[in-house]
Amino acid sequence: MVGAGQLARMTQQAAIGLGVELTVLAESESDPAVLAGARCRLGSPDSLEALRGLARQCDVITFDHEGVEPGHLEALQAEGFEVGPPAAAKLLAQDKLHARRTLSELGVPVPVFAAATTIEEIEQFAAEHGWPVVAKAPRGGYDGRGVWMLQDRRQAVEVVDSAAGGSLLLEPMLDIEREIAVIVARSASGETVVYPVVETVQRDAMCREIIAPAPVGKGLADKAIQLAGRLAERIGSTGVMAVELFVTPDRLIVNELALRPHNSGHYSIEGCVTSQFEQHLRAVLGLPLGPTELTAPAVVTVNVVGTEAGEPSGRLAQALTVPGAHVHLYGKSSRPGRKLGHVTVCGTEPGPTREAARAAADALEGLTP
Amino acid sequence: MVGAGQLARMTQQAAIGLGVELTVLAESESDPAVLAGARCRLGSPDSLEALRGLARQCDVITFDHEGVEPGHLEALQAEGFEVGPPAAAKLLAQDKLHARRTLSELGVPVPVFAAATTIEEIEQFAAEHGWPVVAKAPRGGYDGRGVWMLQDRRQAVEVVDSAAGGSLLLEPMLDIEREIAVIVARSASGETVVYPVVETVQRDAMCREIIAPAPVGKGLADKAIQLAGRLAERIGSTGVMAVELFVTPDRLIVNELALRPHNSGHYSIEGCVTSQFEQHLRAVLGLPLGPTELTAPAVVTVNVVGTEAGEPSGRLAQALTVPGAHVHLYGKSSRPGRKLGHVTVCGTEPGPTREAARAAADALEGLTP
Repeated sequence: MVGAGQLARMTQQAAIGLGVELTVLAESESDPAVLAGARCRLGSPDSLEALRGLARQCDVITFDHEGVEPGHLEALQAEGFEVGPPAAAKLLAQDKLHARRTLSELGVPVPVFAAATTIEEIEQFAAEHGWPVVAKAPRGGYDGRGVWMLQDRRQAVEVVDSAAGGSLLLEPMLDIEREIAVIVARSASGETVVYPVVETVQRDAMCREIIAPAPVGKGLADKAIQLAGRLAERIGSTGVMAVELFVTPDRLIVNELALRPHNSGHYSIEGCVTSQFEQHLRAVLGLPLGPTELTAPAVVTVNVVGTEAGEPSGRLAQALTVPGAHVHLYGKSSRPGRKLGHVTVCGTEPGPTREAARAAADALEGLTP
Repeated sequence: MVGAGQLARMTQQAAIGLGVELTVLAESESDPAVLAGARCRLGSPDSLEALRGLARQCDVITFDHEGVEPGHLEALQAEGFEVGPPAAAKLLAQDKLHARRTLSELGVPVPVFAAATTIEEIEQFAAEHGWPVVAKAPRGGYDGRGVWMLQDRRQAVEVVDSAAGGSLLLEPMLDIEREIAVIVARSASGETVVYPVVETVQRDAMCREIIAPAPVGKGLADKAIQLAGRLAERIGSTGVMAVELFVTPDRLIVNELALRPHNSGHYSIEGCVTSQFEQHLRAVLGLPLGPTELTAPAVVTVNVVGTEAGEPSGRLAQALTVPGAHVHLYGKSSRPGRKLGHVTVCGTEPGPTREAARAAADALEGLTP
């Protein structure tokens, strides 16, 4: 696995059960997955030599993040190494502009969009769709980074200057009723399974809560599930893919893809028969996939984010007083705004389940006395 | 954790979630918990120096097995190290004769028993209770090792000779209707929680299946649960303790105690709100304990035991075709009769749930085409 963050850490937990040996390409020996005991190779995901060294040691290369040079993945494939998901599919998670173009060609509903490198192009888009214009760096952004809400020409100038000739993805400010997400797993053999639709609740442009099942009608949920399954097949993904969608007043549109285990699937560790992490391993190794049903009527995950109150580990006892709180700490040092862990609660009613998960997460964040 | 077998391996999985650093005292770098990435100190559980080295590095010492010299644990406690469970409680799992005497004094129902070092004492016991006489080595036995079914004086002579002056625990051949077990967790702060009663199905003197809940009446189940909870308090155990009981035509009697996570509790990983491994960590660290309710109406665990068919890992794909089969492989090399893993299935009806778990375990054992 390229990368050794919390996704690799939780993949390591799943790998232990299956008796699969997980080796991570880590930037530091204090990365979350290394602390969890995954076999470690130190190296940068930007180095083809480091990636090749990892590939030589493994049956299949997979990913904890999107930050790998796409050309390197193509090179590894050309050299005969197995990469899951394949480079061409992975690129849909690495380059937002490429993803919009490809999904649009496939007939998948996406926001109105345009590529821009000049002020004039942004102004033309604004003339057509109005200000504000949402501009996104096609590569490298996450958790709100690489996204700008342009109110006027002056702000557009700043962003074009900082993009230094690179393309920007433009889209109008959307009227979003709700954000939902679906995890889909596709194995190297072509088997595909889709998880229940969840609502993702954002705060400060970061996913803070995952509510399963999403409080949407069956028609909408079925549509999202079908879309995710078809998409995985059309792009030939392997492993787990998260499809993030916007529910707008008139339609369902795909916002982003993540071709790896994803925050919106953390609820599946306790909340589904097969966790997304075990499923990812099964899928990239060509093993049969597992059932994706919920294990409880309501499952809620709340992220634990760094605050000024310091390390959450010291408040573990307080969080564990919440009955049924499944605490996951990532072994990362605390920094305000950094994802440090999450809590999942399985319950019968969405309201109390969400309250319980929040209570435990709040305790870990030091927000409760 | 002293020992690095499968119990330590599964404790490591739980430790990752809680952000707890688990260090194991391992005899080899290929021990299951070391392969799973637990921090490793190499050393023997027979060496006080090795135990002391581990203790210096940890907040609390706990155990993957019973094979630690009791005197060493007392020495560590005298030196101020925290041992969970304490040496005096742990001894009840290490010495069967001591356990019988102690439980008997506490008024806990145990089989009729006697200690014997001579043929005459065995013959006297047989005169009173009839042949066969069951003789057990007070220390070191497990999975049927250290247990002899004496049919007559001749066999008694052999066992007395091999015991070389050591005491034997004698008991009559019991009329056992069913074997059941209860996991109880007691924290260093005195909080106690008890898990549901399970049936343990033995084959060749080894636990092969765990059926939760046990198919026994509520009266019997409640009695076992109360007994386990009271026992944990009376002996001052900390951590998880397994109480193994016999159901006989006229009463419920305690057979053995294990003061550590136990095979009869493996079902709890997916089958209870809090797994026995997470609970054990919470208990020995003095953290609040978690709920013990079942997550499904029927949960069955079937052990995967080594056969002539070699390593189970090569048959993982076949096992995973069973929907909902949670496979746990321990990373141990295969040897006929060796516990190599287990499979748990959560379902709605005991019959089909058991069949599914058996199907996956059979596949791993190479018993299906």
